[in-house]
Amino acid sequence: MIRRYDYGSPIETGAIPCPPPAQKDTMPYFSLHRAGASLSFSLPLSKDTFIFGLGETVRGINKRGHLYRSWNSDDGAHSEDKHALYASHNFLIFWDCAQLLGVFFDDPGFVEFDLGYSHANEAVITSKNGDLRVYLIEEESLLAVTRAFRKLIGRSYLPPKWAFGYLQSRWGYASEQDVLNVVREHRSRDIPLDGVCMDIDYMDGYRDFTVDTSRFPDLAALAATLHDEHIQLIPIIDAGIKQEEGYRICDEGLANNYFCTQENGQPFVGAVWPGRSYFPDFLKEDVRAWFGAQYASFLDAGIEGFWNDMNEPALFYSPSGLAAAIDEAEALRGKNVGIEDFFRIRRVFDQLAGNPNDYACMYQCVGGHRIRHDRVHNLYGMNMTRAASEGMQRHAPSRRHLLFTRSSYIGAHRYGGVWQGDNASWWSHLLLNLKMMPSLNMCGFLYTGADIGGFNCDTTEDLLLRWLQLGIFTPLMRNHASYDARNQEIYRFDSWQAMRNVVTLRYALLPFLYSEFMKCALTDACMFRPLAFDYPQDPTACRIEDQVLLGEACMIAPVYEQNARGRHVYLPEDMLMLRMRSAGDYDRVPMAKGHHWIELELDECPLFIRRGHVIPWAHAAQWVDAVDSRNLALQGWLDDQAIYALYDDDGYAPDVELSKGLTLIHVHRTKDGVCATGDGLTLNTKLIVCDEAAP
Amino acid sequence: MIRRYDYGSPIETGAIPCPPPAQKDTMPYFSLHRAGASLSFSLPLSKDTFIFGLGETVRGINKRGHLYRSWNSDDGAHSEDKHALYASHNFLIFWDCAQLLGVFFDDPGFVEFDLGYSHANEAVITSKNGDLRVYLIEEESLLAVTRAFRKLIGRSYLPPKWAFGYLQSRWGYASEQDVLNVVREHRSRDIPLDGVCMDIDYMDGYRDFTVDTSRFPDLAALAATLHDEHIQLIPIIDAGIKQEEGYRICDEGLANNYFCTQENGQPFVGAVWPGRSYFPDFLKEDVRAWFGAQYASFLDAGIEGFWNDMNEPALFYSPSGLAAAIDEAEALRGKNVGIEDFFRIRRVFDQLAGNPNDYACMYQCVGGHRIRHDRVHNLYGMNMTRAASEGMQRHAPSRRHLLFTRSSYIGAHRYGGVWQGDNASWWSHLLLNLKMMPSLNMCGFLYTGADIGGFNCDTTEDLLLRWLQLGIFTPLMRNHASYDARNQEIYRFDSWQAMRNVVTLRYALLPFLYSEFMKCALTDACMFRPLAFDYPQDPTACRIEDQVLLGEACMIAPVYEQNARGRHVYLPEDMLMLRMRSAGDYDRVPMAKGHHWIELELDECPLFIRRGHVIPWAHAAQWVDAVDSRNLALQGWLDDQAIYALYDDDGYAPDVELSKGLTLIHVHRTKDGVCATGDGLTLNTKLIVCDEAAP
Repeated sequence: MIRRYDYGSPIETGAIPCPPPAQKDTMPYFSLHRAGASLSFSLPLSKDTFIFGLGETVRGINKRGHLYRSWNSDDGAHSEDKHALYASHNFLIFWDCAQLLGVFFDDPGFVEFDLGYSHANEAVITSKNGDLRVYLIEEESLLAVTRAFRKLIGRSYLPPKWAFGYLQSRWGYASEQDVLNVVREHRSRDIPLDGVCMDIDYMDGYRDFTVDTSRFPDLAALAATLHDEHIQLIPIIDAGIKQEEGYRICDEGLANNYFCTQENGQPFVGAVWPGRSYFPDFLKEDVRAWFGAQYASFLDAGIEGFWNDMNEPALFYSPSGLAAAIDEAEALRGKNVGIEDFFRIRRVFDQLAGNPNDYACMYQCVGGHRIRHDRVHNLYGMNMTRAASEGMQRHAPSRRHLLFTRSSYIGAHRYGGVWQGDNASWWSHLLLNLKMMPSLNMCGFLYTGADIGGFNCDTTEDLLLRWLQLGIFTPLMRNHASYDARNQEIYRFDSWQAMRNVVTLRYALLPFLYSEFMKCALTDACMFRPLAFDYPQDPTACRIEDQVLLGEACMIAPVYEQNARGRHVYLPEDMLMLRMRSAGDYDRVPMAKGHHWIELELDECPLFIRRGHVIPWAHAAQWVDAVDSRNLALQGWLDDQAIYALYDDDGYAPDVELSKGLTLIHVHRTKDGVCATGDGLTLNTKLIVCDEAAP
Repeated sequence: MIRRYDYGSPIETGAIPCPPPAQKDTMPYFSLHRAGASLSFSLPLSKDTFIFGLGETVRGINKRGHLYRSWNSDDGAHSEDKHALYASHNFLIFWDCAQLLGVFFDDPGFVEFDLGYSHANEAVITSKNGDLRVYLIEEESLLAVTRAFRKLIGRSYLPPKWAFGYLQSRWGYASEQDVLNVVREHRSRDIPLDGVCMDIDYMDGYRDFTVDTSRFPDLAALAATLHDEHIQLIPIIDAGIKQEEGYRICDEGLANNYFCTQENGQPFVGAVWPGRSYFPDFLKEDVRAWFGAQYASFLDAGIEGFWNDMNEPALFYSPSGLAAAIDEAEALRGKNVGIEDFFRIRRVFDQLAGNPNDYACMYQCVGGHRIRHDRVHNLYGMNMTRAASEGMQRHAPSRRHLLFTRSSYIGAHRYGGVWQGDNASWWSHLLLNLKMMPSLNMCGFLYTGADIGGFNCDTTEDLLLRWLQLGIFTPLMRNHASYDARNQEIYRFDSWQAMRNVVTLRYALLPFLYSEFMKCALTDACMFRPLAFDYPQDPTACRIEDQVLLGEACMIAPVYEQNARGRHVYLPEDMLMLRMRSAGDYDRVPMAKGHHWIELELDECPLFIRRGHVIPWAHAAQWVDAVDSRNLALQGWLDDQAIYALYDDDGYAPDVELSKGLTLIHVHRTKDGVCATGDGLTLNTKLIVCDEAAP
């Protein structure tokens, strides 16, 4: 059951395509408290209340105990104390033995979630503006609550199949030659690869939709060359538009009032990569149409994938903010600066970026009215992504395109994927990557992954190797690093062969991963789930924070500690562990329900398959299209029989239908061994373990 | 066997009181490489080489895989990517099945430890200046290597017994009333307490050795009032001396050339809390004598404990650095500042503090010669601590004093303890606290602990509770927070009773902890050890990073994850788990060698006692002196018999002798039960589990 309650004057966010009518009664469960404009919703928490959700943010799968804020922020140093990352996903589930409640706070402004932080026994959610819709979702199970919410917010974005390949990226591929080198180093060493991401380096002076032809003389030719190698180019597009007369995008935007304004209607100016810039007002339909149409030239050049960045929107500074900071610095000249002044001047320069005062000077147009940006701040990235998605769909309606964005709000999941922001080369961010997967899935974002190896800071060889061992399972599998970080392409390291071998696993698993992804997208299910979702009666399983379920049949449990040669794992039921080194080299270990210590050498990663299930396993290949999804081995632990529902399609057509893509694989035991059948499939059953091997 | 090798012109650091003569031969094992002044030492690493040591720094107990730098730094945001913290402890142990090697790089300048970071199979240690002594230590076991090194560097500092009590601290106790409130809130709720630390707030304008009498009108009277409550005042002393005519310390320092200079001999000026300041040249004996004598007025006021801070030395800025930054800011006025300029100006202000250019303008006096500070940078904190220690010893030779420092070098362990620097309210820093314990112990620092609850950022209730559950075992047990962090005294929280109950455990364990500490200090042993030290044949034990051995009989394994209700633990042998809620409320669970999952509610923490051992357990009390060390229960798991060597003394006399303080407690089974004897002790054996309870 879904009920909607409206407060104040809610802004239509687009999160929910067809909102149910608002209730007239008082919302149950929560106590409301108004203070000025702000509106708080309090819910008592029992000792055992779990809180799931919130999508992309810091901390655990169980969000309880911290203070979170919905305020899309460009903050790469996301240590545990941070409250907000790049996205705002205001959906939560409160659950204990007495209550199960999904809640979506549909509010595009600043929202604070005090989830047992101020007081352990209380959750207080505060909308700063007090204008919002709240949706209560009550169903019988965690799975059902999530599915109902996902159904409400609409079908998740479908990427092309090649987007499940391994992608290499770096801020710093400064020329065509750099890109070609990356490709050559991968292909010459048989490291599988499907795409190379181009960061801001390719642009002409950081101008959107331009190419610096001195360094990338012919993008179409480069794309064609790479296509011959079965590799896609994936350029970045930023939100800010350079303020420059004669730059077409800028001129068009000004001429048509496409940019966000100041209160007086003049265009708002803030600085990002190219210096002073304008910000398209993506809340306006005509702006979205115009901006989306710009992707066409790249599409025509043979490019089929993009990432949208800087769309919180990031603001490095405003001209007035910078001038004020310079004044403050100047005022210290010659002074004996003590503690207060010193820390203030450091803060002034630190807080130039993403300063709330600047957002408060920015205006957008909603329904013909000029409203202050900070009331709709969290919608910016979503609508940029929508613009891109709709633009590409119009220009090339016959194909799916890769699109992922840094900033998002619930609703953006219909238009593209998200990467998990500018993380760091920290072991804790490997674990955070894992924890975000189910939280993002609950909020509709299925195509997601983190920057493997870490974006900021210098990675280490073992961190990259262990992170790849997680990355092979995430739909977006991208190795990405910042311009001042250590080179972290696989081939840079002594143990590149072990890393390559891990990547081959991705390709062996590709039919399985693609099948699970598409089934979840088409049935509003979560590909990654907390153990609590499937084993709510198992109190140990419910509190597990470093293992997640993958699809219907699997569980993953990566190693995320430096120098570890194994880890503890809890099996909520009997499972077969694949201890994997490469697509062709792994052990099969049937394991009983319960706690285990498993040995995992640096080059080994585990995958757990529930007893009684099988999954498909392909021959590895160097790129996605070379993976043969019709010729499969089956991995699993069979009792008497098992069924796997394999979804497959051509990987490109935008119109997909679950029933058309499904092939049921039946596996059963016979006197002579194991027999498997599936329409049009060649199936190998040699890898199936039978119950004689039970522990 | 200890061998010393000299390179270049080593500076006498004081790390080793009586250095053995230098070898004439070439140092074995390492390959040397000189590049300019720098000198590198390379050692091949096998796949299984462990690296222990490095004292206070980031990352694991096994240091392998990261890049560390010895360069004492004031950097509170010590995330995983950092290379240096507040101290430099250049002792390492390399260990695999073929080799066991302790190495001490006695070099007070910049040293880099590339421990399998650039290449996984190689350690490269680089001395920037190339002037150093290297000590090779070869013994039969990890324990023996450590003991030999500890013997070489001299006996560790002995604090008074009260320093093992619970201490409460905060940057922000701004008046006598604030301090009295803290005491009252503890005493009125029966939260044990032995000391209150006074941060920079008590000083008159951040001038060392002054008191702001408007807020602390009579420090001696305050100390006396607190003494009546069995509580000590522990003021902070900073390294920098305010530049101000008429301020006695400043005037005396200038008159006697006590301060660090510029190259031209004029006093060096850098800014810290009070603004422009001078820095005593603690490498000079007369400066140490002068500075140390200043503590006398506090001693005379009834104060018996101090913490030395800001002695890396921290430098917020130099006047010339600040002027240059202002110039750089001014040059941007009116410009369209793009990416490079913007990030540069932010960096300029960020890097004002602790700037290497400033340290390069500072000079100290070594053996009558003026040498550049950066050649001896890492000795500064050590020699400030030495000054304080020797000063107090001269003024009040009949008592031990509490002294701990932020910055240190090996050698400082003879003069005081260390706290583990300005950490953050991060769960990862709780774990880092645990990991640093054995590493610091190896380097001689026995009296140590971290800021419980975390210094920077806002703590959470569960983090503080879990951190207290670790803190009860660390010799220094201090709850400390920054001025802009959430209040984190125990009584601020709804669950203060659970926290209080945890603190009572500290007092029940006090005779045991004090005994273990003193035995280790007097026999050059480690109170906290990696499992590898005692179980080198057990490969699983060797890689454990979240459990450490405590004394001869125990192991600790704290919970360090939010929302966890248990943890995995590996027992390298049979052990008795005490699942403890308070001094009077715990379960006794005999457990077999191997992997276990243990349930631990939020208010429960575990202590493991090796089978066949017993430990003393006192009645809890509200302060240390009220703990009766002669009337003890015994906790443990007895087979036939056990011996516990209990050390005790009056807790104050500086001259201690192991043999005089030891009482042997014999425990054995009789027909009727268990019998325990110990000279002058009243012993209760009811808490001993006998082997019938074996799992």
